[in-house]
Amino acid sequence: MAAMTYTKKNASFFLLSFLVGLVIWFLPEPQGVSSQAWHLFAIFIFTVIGVITQPLPIGTIAFVGLMFVTLTKTLTFDEAFTGFSNNIVWLIVFAFFIARGFIKTGLGFRIAYHLMNLMGKSTLGMGYGLVATDFVLSSAIPSLTARTGGVIFPLLNSLCKAFGSEPHNQPRKVGAFLFVTAFQGSVITSAIFLTAMAGNPMIADLAEQIGITISWGKWAAAAIVPGLIALIIVPLFIYKIYPPEQKETPDAKKYAQKQLKDMGKISSPEWIMLIVFVLLIVLWAGAKIIGIHPAITAMVGLSLLLVAKVIAWDDIVSEKGAWNILVWFSVLLMMAAFLTKLGFMSWFSDLVMVHLQGMNWVLGFSILFLVYFYSHYIFASNAAHIGAMFLPFLVLATAMGTPPGLAVMSLAFASSLFGGLTHYGCGPAPIFFGAGYVKVTDWWKLGFYISVINIIIWIGLGSLWWKLIGLY
Amino acid sequence: MAAMTYTKKNASFFLLSFLVGLVIWFLPEPQGVSSQAWHLFAIFIFTVIGVITQPLPIGTIAFVGLMFVTLTKTLTFDEAFTGFSNNIVWLIVFAFFIARGFIKTGLGFRIAYHLMNLMGKSTLGMGYGLVATDFVLSSAIPSLTARTGGVIFPLLNSLCKAFGSEPHNQPRKVGAFLFVTAFQGSVITSAIFLTAMAGNPMIADLAEQIGITISWGKWAAAAIVPGLIALIIVPLFIYKIYPPEQKETPDAKKYAQKQLKDMGKISSPEWIMLIVFVLLIVLWAGAKIIGIHPAITAMVGLSLLLVAKVIAWDDIVSEKGAWNILVWFSVLLMMAAFLTKLGFMSWFSDLVMVHLQGMNWVLGFSILFLVYFYSHYIFASNAAHIGAMFLPFLVLATAMGTPPGLAVMSLAFASSLFGGLTHYGCGPAPIFFGAGYVKVTDWWKLGFYISVINIIIWIGLGSLWWKLIGLY
Repeated sequence: MAAMTYTKKNASFFLLSFLVGLVIWFLPEPQGVSSQAWHLFAIFIFTVIGVITQPLPIGTIAFVGLMFVTLTKTLTFDEAFTGFSNNIVWLIVFAFFIARGFIKTGLGFRIAYHLMNLMGKSTLGMGYGLVATDFVLSSAIPSLTARTGGVIFPLLNSLCKAFGSEPHNQPRKVGAFLFVTAFQGSVITSAIFLTAMAGNPMIADLAEQIGITISWGKWAAAAIVPGLIALIIVPLFIYKIYPPEQKETPDAKKYAQKQLKDMGKISSPEWIMLIVFVLLIVLWAGAKIIGIHPAITAMVGLSLLLVAKVIAWDDIVSEKGAWNILVWFSVLLMMAAFLTKLGFMSWFSDLVMVHLQGMNWVLGFSILFLVYFYSHYIFASNAAHIGAMFLPFLVLATAMGTPPGLAVMSLAFASSLFGGLTHYGCGPAPIFFGAGYVKVTDWWKLGFYISVINIIIWIGLGSLWWKLIGLY
Repeated sequence: MAAMTYTKKNASFFLLSFLVGLVIWFLPEPQGVSSQAWHLFAIFIFTVIGVITQPLPIGTIAFVGLMFVTLTKTLTFDEAFTGFSNNIVWLIVFAFFIARGFIKTGLGFRIAYHLMNLMGKSTLGMGYGLVATDFVLSSAIPSLTARTGGVIFPLLNSLCKAFGSEPHNQPRKVGAFLFVTAFQGSVITSAIFLTAMAGNPMIADLAEQIGITISWGKWAAAAIVPGLIALIIVPLFIYKIYPPEQKETPDAKKYAQKQLKDMGKISSPEWIMLIVFVLLIVLWAGAKIIGIHPAITAMVGLSLLLVAKVIAWDDIVSEKGAWNILVWFSVLLMMAAFLTKLGFMSWFSDLVMVHLQGMNWVLGFSILFLVYFYSHYIFASNAAHIGAMFLPFLVLATAMGTPPGLAVMSLAFASSLFGGLTHYGCGPAPIFFGAGYVKVTDWWKLGFYISVINIIIWIGLGSLWWKLIGLY
């Protein structure tokens, strides 16, 4: 066993992240920012640089960041550990456990073989199939994390394994492409319906506060054209720039049929898994009406699987991916939440506003929009970003003369689309990234490229469409 | 894979725990108890019966309990998950990671072989050696969990492995005996000094409120005689009633010397581990003066080990025992904490008081004392129990004529000693139990027997000693 062995590159990256954090820490805080918020920002930047350059695993970096937060008393222990009692974090963790049930019972493979049989002629076709499934579900399940984490993720996981593409064995064969496609697809589907993501109703509420009403129909009408175009173009783009190693799968159909035959009749654990799965979908779809939070629904499903011994407690504690995400996502979420709570985010939006006052609205709103969009690099949740910045940005946009309809729709859709930038930016991100098929640098690069494509489609083409249907 | 296969016994136990919980749930709540507190109590009883009879693993039972708490809206999601951001829970989790470092580097084995060489002639001798080590440390490290979890536990773990006694392979050879002995020893050492456990200064504060001053010296003088007697008798009792399979280890000395020779010089990861270990002991000992919470100290140590690559992040996420405890202990701690917060505990102490009013103090105080002691079955923390019940019980005891010195000392020492009753009653309990050497039924049986012995020694003999030195 060798301690302390770093490659030169990794040693430099670790030093870099540490030094940048240290320099920010000791810089005088800007006016309007408390020293507490500034110090947290310094530790956050250390963590983010570390998480991107990865001189050490993400978990280690996040843990060291958490240690700094508590050791320096920037936050109290209780504050620093709030991420560990966050319901979105646990919903993500539960998604991993549910996926384990799919794999262990074989149900995931069975469904995957059926999917393969239906649309498995090409890898691109499978990508579109997944995106289409997500799109259909997005009209029913109002929690993005539950939908993609609880439904798409387990299927996708089994599908890739059925193709012999695993995180540590041929990840690029089909897995990496499909994971990025399904993820970026979910980012788009969450923008299409007012009920496709928890943050969207927040946006409608906030807009209402300044007299702009967005009904379910108005939202869908504005989103459906750019949304469908994006759902067609983005998978194709990923296919070109980040292609799967195996593109054609001519034997997939036969193979799937043979596998299904070999599997024989559906077993009793598979039946239980299937019933629980259907129950989950129903409860998630009816979350608002029934009044059960998606994370609690997931607990009900998991309890049933555990008591029916479809999965064992040992499967739970052995699910390394879940515990890994529990740590690093809790830490990033906590930091971003406290940057908001301590006023750092509103200081930042004030800063932007001061610089934009009195500008021509086309230029001004363009800058405003881009700042709103790309500041998501420092957020770990769509809802937090919306809560911190949506309203002030909307107010300023209209104040500088931007047509309200254009401003509100642009910012509303951005609030879903920016979730695709990082591997921690929205609920599905840590789940799909955490599966381990895609390198963090690829994830970020693709996230950036696709954000540009989305902006061109949604705002460029979209603004014409909105004009056409009379939204502004 | 077979779903739903329960033995008859386990099926009955599961049904039993569920039905008892259900009956309590639907019983009308006693006057003075809110329906919320009563419902939580019903779920708590389901969980505790399940945890003791274990028709399913503890983790599953606790998870199902947690699900019930949130699904029935007895508590909100945020409230129900507060255990997951509790610093004692994390200190326990961190203790497992630190222990992993001891084992991985080999330092644990090296120290264990040295211990074996020194006192390894008999298993009983090793038991006493561990207890003596804990006693010495208890004068320096004021956190019981940090001391036993961070220092004793890793050594003990390595020691048992060195003797070829593992949880799933010959647990009773030496391991089970040593784990119970070290645990029950720590319960006693934590009562001996005012600074041996976080709850003790709380007791001094509370007693001060009704005009009884307990100095460090007074505490130690009252405790040292019964304490030392208990430290001698309790291991001997465990040795008789729960003997190790291997009692004499005549070759241990030679074996240890040979192993040490084979290990050769101390390696660089061992050096780092050793330095971090010494740092931890120093920071834990100086926690009050330096102002760093023991859990944060553990994070500093772990960060150093991770950055120095002495342990890998994969070691952390693979540490199943730690994740297991994170779930079940968080749940039990949360339930007990909310039973206190919702007034259930104070209702319970009021109930006792009403029945004791006007009684002869010898009989009255005896009942009071026993209720105080054995109500710890429903607490998951010494501090919570002290906070909820110490002061009212002390007030009533003196009001009914118990000499204040006798009352305060009896209740003060009980506040450490009751921690030995269950596998969740105090910080070290889940750690030592979680190692997996001892069956839960054995743990509880021994816990009960030893509680009787402790009461005889501490209160029976102790009260004479306190009279002698003029405490009452």
